[in-house]
Amino acid sequence: MTGFDYAARMERARRELVVREVDVLLISLGSDLPYLTGYTAMPLERLTMAVVPRDGEPVLVIPELEAPRVTPRPDVFRVHAWGETEDPVAIVAGLMGRATQAMIGDHTWSVFLLGLQQVLPATRFLSARPVTEALRIIKEPAEIGLLRTAGASADRVAALLADHPFAGKTELQVSREIGAMLEANGTDVAGFAIVASGPNGASPHHEAGDRIIREGDAIVVDFGGKVGGYSSDTTRMYHVGDPPLRYREVHEIVRVAQQEAVAAVQPGVTAESVDRAARSVIEAAGYGEYFIHRTGHGIGLDGHEDPYIVSGSSRELEAGMAFSIEPGIYLPGEFGVRIEDIVVCGDGGVERMNNSPRDVVVVA
Amino acid sequence: MTGFDYAARMERARRELVVREVDVLLISLGSDLPYLTGYTAMPLERLTMAVVPRDGEPVLVIPELEAPRVTPRPDVFRVHAWGETEDPVAIVAGLMGRATQAMIGDHTWSVFLLGLQQVLPATRFLSARPVTEALRIIKEPAEIGLLRTAGASADRVAALLADHPFAGKTELQVSREIGAMLEANGTDVAGFAIVASGPNGASPHHEAGDRIIREGDAIVVDFGGKVGGYSSDTTRMYHVGDPPLRYREVHEIVRVAQQEAVAAVQPGVTAESVDRAARSVIEAAGYGEYFIHRTGHGIGLDGHEDPYIVSGSSRELEAGMAFSIEPGIYLPGEFGVRIEDIVVCGDGGVERMNNSPRDVVVVA
Repeated sequence: MTGFDYAARMERARRELVVREVDVLLISLGSDLPYLTGYTAMPLERLTMAVVPRDGEPVLVIPELEAPRVTPRPDVFRVHAWGETEDPVAIVAGLMGRATQAMIGDHTWSVFLLGLQQVLPATRFLSARPVTEALRIIKEPAEIGLLRTAGASADRVAALLADHPFAGKTELQVSREIGAMLEANGTDVAGFAIVASGPNGASPHHEAGDRIIREGDAIVVDFGGKVGGYSSDTTRMYHVGDPPLRYREVHEIVRVAQQEAVAAVQPGVTAESVDRAARSVIEAAGYGEYFIHRTGHGIGLDGHEDPYIVSGSSRELEAGMAFSIEPGIYLPGEFGVRIEDIVVCGDGGVERMNNSPRDVVVVA
Repeated sequence: MTGFDYAARMERARRELVVREVDVLLISLGSDLPYLTGYTAMPLERLTMAVVPRDGEPVLVIPELEAPRVTPRPDVFRVHAWGETEDPVAIVAGLMGRATQAMIGDHTWSVFLLGLQQVLPATRFLSARPVTEALRIIKEPAEIGLLRTAGASADRVAALLADHPFAGKTELQVSREIGAMLEANGTDVAGFAIVASGPNGASPHHEAGDRIIREGDAIVVDFGGKVGGYSSDTTRMYHVGDPPLRYREVHEIVRVAQQEAVAAVQPGVTAESVDRAARSVIEAAGYGEYFIHRTGHGIGLDGHEDPYIVSGSSRELEAGMAFSIEPGIYLPGEFGVRIEDIVVCGDGGVERMNNSPRDVVVVA
């Protein structure tokens, strides 16, 4: 999390507060905090919270024992470390002054919001999303560079998996192997690896488990990790032995749907129209009811963030937005197929962060 | 998460709601949900929430694409799956009826609480902690069994580390090796491994990084993972080459402080008196200002939960409570020492879940 201009980001945040007539922005768990300060809070019971007043100095309130983790950035914030027997909610409330309107980061634990509401009954609390989204949705060139590096790392793993033995192993075992492969191929932190074999593939968010992979299985492999804080996320399909015709047909429908949606990405088109581009291919093939999720999600410091590529979203895409395109068909009791790339919308066209082959890969 | 009587737990939760005159309990992210239902929500933007009315049927509101992950327990809850273009906050609000008082799980994202408050302005929202803590703080025998198994797995890794090469590796490399060792030694999910070498040891929550471990380093190794959902958490000290006298002295102070605190644990004593037992040893030795955190935290499905062993807590310990005892001394610019075991308070005395040697271990 070095190399970014946190002071400029903080200044942009404060300009958003002025426009929205908000007195103070409160940022705790999640990616908004590292975006603004370079520091990531530990997801534990001790409160870490940046208090960003519209006017005045931003303060990072942090448990004393975690203060040594913070890289000092005196031009961006000062640090207020609280001791084990102090009440951090009271400290934050004290720093908020007589705020009429406060915005609070979406991932902040409710227990802290309830505590603040009790201490400051006259303050109106709002979701910080309009501000944090405005800041984060258009990626800076350095952020796109990290997404590209993360994508290339995942692509190397996707290629290695073509020669990787699957049969006879449990999903969990393969999932752990993919984690190690990510870390050996340039990813800082292996984030996740869904390995959903055979009928388990029909559950889009299947958790890799004890099922032993065997001949004839289609395997949904959806994985990613972080490089410099930025996530990769790609899905490829592997098949133990030659796939039957029915599998090949469904795979081809998903591949074309994914290609059509990627081709639809350009500045000025709506998110829902990109979703429609994928969905109409799948519907025309008669599988509409088996495509049970949206087409994609934004990506950056969070694995899922704005913009969401979903029916009903009239948001217009802009250059610099990064998101997944990942249609799927899920046939209960049989198998699932999903193909996913991260793409970046550019002025001159769309750039894919993932470029490994999208055909079914036959494995042993 | 099998083998527990979720229906009985749900019934206890509802009795707590009656006593506290609360109409509905709302449980989302974190460990309260698997405790009550056996299901763990994904920490993503799509809302998963158990709606538990004081009277009436509990409902698990879940994204449609994650519904296949749920093990059905029709005697405990029914499932309400919501589609990609529906509003889950409206669905939860609809299920809450005309609730006057609602309790909401502490780790629920603020954005969902704010959404519910907007839709239901007449409902008073409270932290669910009084109820969830009452349920979870006394461990069932099967839970203690899992804590014991998790502790034994961590102890095996602690023993292996005595023969493990440290020098010349980065902290991050050793941290990853410990993760793999945990998984190879009976832990389902490697949770974390703090490896804080040399002066980094003075930061209690140091994140393993690029520092290369070298001759003369004291190394704080604090690690754990999950078995059947229950966490281990132990800290041992390793030293590359023979430690100097100063290190040995500080280590011995911490070792005695930890021993005294463990010996103080019994039903009826207060949490603060256990903290005091450790702290007084360190203060008497002149290092009081360098013991900058509480003595311990509860453990179970969460790595940190009630009871907290902290100054100011007059909570009386009871048989079945499980928590860490982990005093430390942190000398900025020099090194840190922490020694940590998980213990369970029993009627007949304290049981340690960690039993690897607490002396400094000299490594290469």
